[in-house]
Amino acid sequence: MKLIERYAAGDLRALARLITVVESGLPEAGALLRAARRLGRRSRVVGITGSPGSGKSTLTDALIAQLRAAGQTVAVAAVDPSSPFSGGAILGDRIRMLRHHADTGVFVRSMASRGALGGLSNRTLQVLALLENFGFDYVFIETVGVGQSEVDIARVADHTVLVLTPNQGDAVQAFKAGVMEIADVFVVNKSDLPGASRLVRELRAAQGLAAHTAEDWLAPVVQTTASDGSGVDTLLARLEAHRAHLGEVRLEARRLERTRFEVRLQVHERVLRAAQAAEEDALRRILKGEASPEELADRLLSLEEVQTQPLR
Amino acid sequence: MKLIERYAAGDLRALARLITVVESGLPEAGALLRAARRLGRRSRVVGITGSPGSGKSTLTDALIAQLRAAGQTVAVAAVDPSSPFSGGAILGDRIRMLRHHADTGVFVRSMASRGALGGLSNRTLQVLALLENFGFDYVFIETVGVGQSEVDIARVADHTVLVLTPNQGDAVQAFKAGVMEIADVFVVNKSDLPGASRLVRELRAAQGLAAHTAEDWLAPVVQTTASDGSGVDTLLARLEAHRAHLGEVRLEARRLERTRFEVRLQVHERVLRAAQAAEEDALRRILKGEASPEELADRLLSLEEVQTQPLR
Repeated sequence: MKLIERYAAGDLRALARLITVVESGLPEAGALLRAARRLGRRSRVVGITGSPGSGKSTLTDALIAQLRAAGQTVAVAAVDPSSPFSGGAILGDRIRMLRHHADTGVFVRSMASRGALGGLSNRTLQVLALLENFGFDYVFIETVGVGQSEVDIARVADHTVLVLTPNQGDAVQAFKAGVMEIADVFVVNKSDLPGASRLVRELRAAQGLAAHTAEDWLAPVVQTTASDGSGVDTLLARLEAHRAHLGEVRLEARRLERTRFEVRLQVHERVLRAAQAAEEDALRRILKGEASPEELADRLLSLEEVQTQPLR
Repeated sequence: MKLIERYAAGDLRALARLITVVESGLPEAGALLRAARRLGRRSRVVGITGSPGSGKSTLTDALIAQLRAAGQTVAVAAVDPSSPFSGGAILGDRIRMLRHHADTGVFVRSMASRGALGGLSNRTLQVLALLENFGFDYVFIETVGVGQSEVDIARVADHTVLVLTPNQGDAVQAFKAGVMEIADVFVVNKSDLPGASRLVRELRAAQGLAAHTAEDWLAPVVQTTASDGSGVDTLLARLEAHRAHLGEVRLEARRLERTRFEVRLQVHERVLRAAQAAEEDALRRILKGEASPEELADRLLSLEEVQTQPLR
């Protein structure tokens, strides 16, 4: 049986192989990805983001356990933009997730690629498409986020969960960085630590500062202790409520935005490569005033490898 | 006399007019910008960045005063990516700078444009080119930075000054966000406040964590009180020292990187506009699995308005 047929029939090894083909940019990647996309399958896509040490992976782990108990299949794409400061913790998290290894209803994949724009990479979105079209009920996309990857997650997910912990000044920082706005649900994790209820109050106060209409979704704040699973059922209920709030119309709009983002990343990454390759010679001529950035941009955009280079 | 000739001869009103033409994307902008670039003049470009309330504008103000006393001409491009949280403060800062209004050796321009990538915009870099080619000795580019604009400033400036203040947890935050690395000089401003010397120690400790070779520039930490001008002479001396460290070779390399960044922004912004304009119809076909983001990217990149659209 051909690879894509095995994939379509639910063979996890075919999925893993397909992901490798796409991640490595092998020649057959373009055709395979197109075939996978043509299946037109959709998952519930949940983004999980928050600062390092907030317990995102433990939380994802607890969510997986509950969803599996309810008979749902789950994939996790763990994106690690390879920060030198968090490498160790992430490795530990991944190892912990191995406890689902023997369960064929769970698939976990780590990706280290950083996008051309500092956030999610085009490659990551292609892997996400492979996970959805495989037919998982839920796809979690988890990122260690400071900055762009958090914002990108919100563009890609149907529901975005922002995980905070007490005593880190996280609420204030998140508020400053404009990250508050991306959350559909706030999780105050490690709620057994002192300061949890103060953080909940701070979050609600910060929300109060923004203008809301009756139609707006006011992101609920859920307290969890991921390590013992408490609060996770409430979190799932809030995700359900958010799904109901979205309805078909808003969900469709979100997915259109995600597609637009995906197309933009495609284009950006190709063009970025072209600009990186811009010969030093051309740049020196600009420095001397003999050429302009505008002219070089014209030239780069007309290069054939920028024009059609579906999967390199 | 033609506009570009008046500009080349040092007419500030011609400069202001040229900036307006470029910012508004008027049809003549492309040719005028090319002519300005052909003058091949260079300034010392100093980036000033730091969180809102750190006193960047007061510091710039104090730097201007000292440089003017030494007979140097100065331009300031104040970039405000129009955050709803800092609008008020910035307006106040701008008004304060008006005290140089009658001095023809000083030119201040505020820009509100946010770049396509969240940081500096292509338009801002074009204005910067106009300021340099006008012939100012120094050009300051000042940004209210959380995130991308700070990183972009470092790409554009010959020297990047990161302004911090005591008792804000700024050092830790800057370290976390990876902003430490962009600083050529640290300024601990408001050094009359308690906690200043602790912040200096924290900065030095944080620097100690990174690996350094003898060839590396170890960013000095300067204490200032911008409001009474103390420490500003030391800051200028440190900038001189950094210039000496750069030498011609490293300076040229920085400027090549800046040019590369400029070309990339050009290309990104044009492509972004094309992607924004991608008809919802095409996006819906992708959602249905009837088309792929890769195919739409191909199509967008071959559009004529992406190929050659020098200044829209």
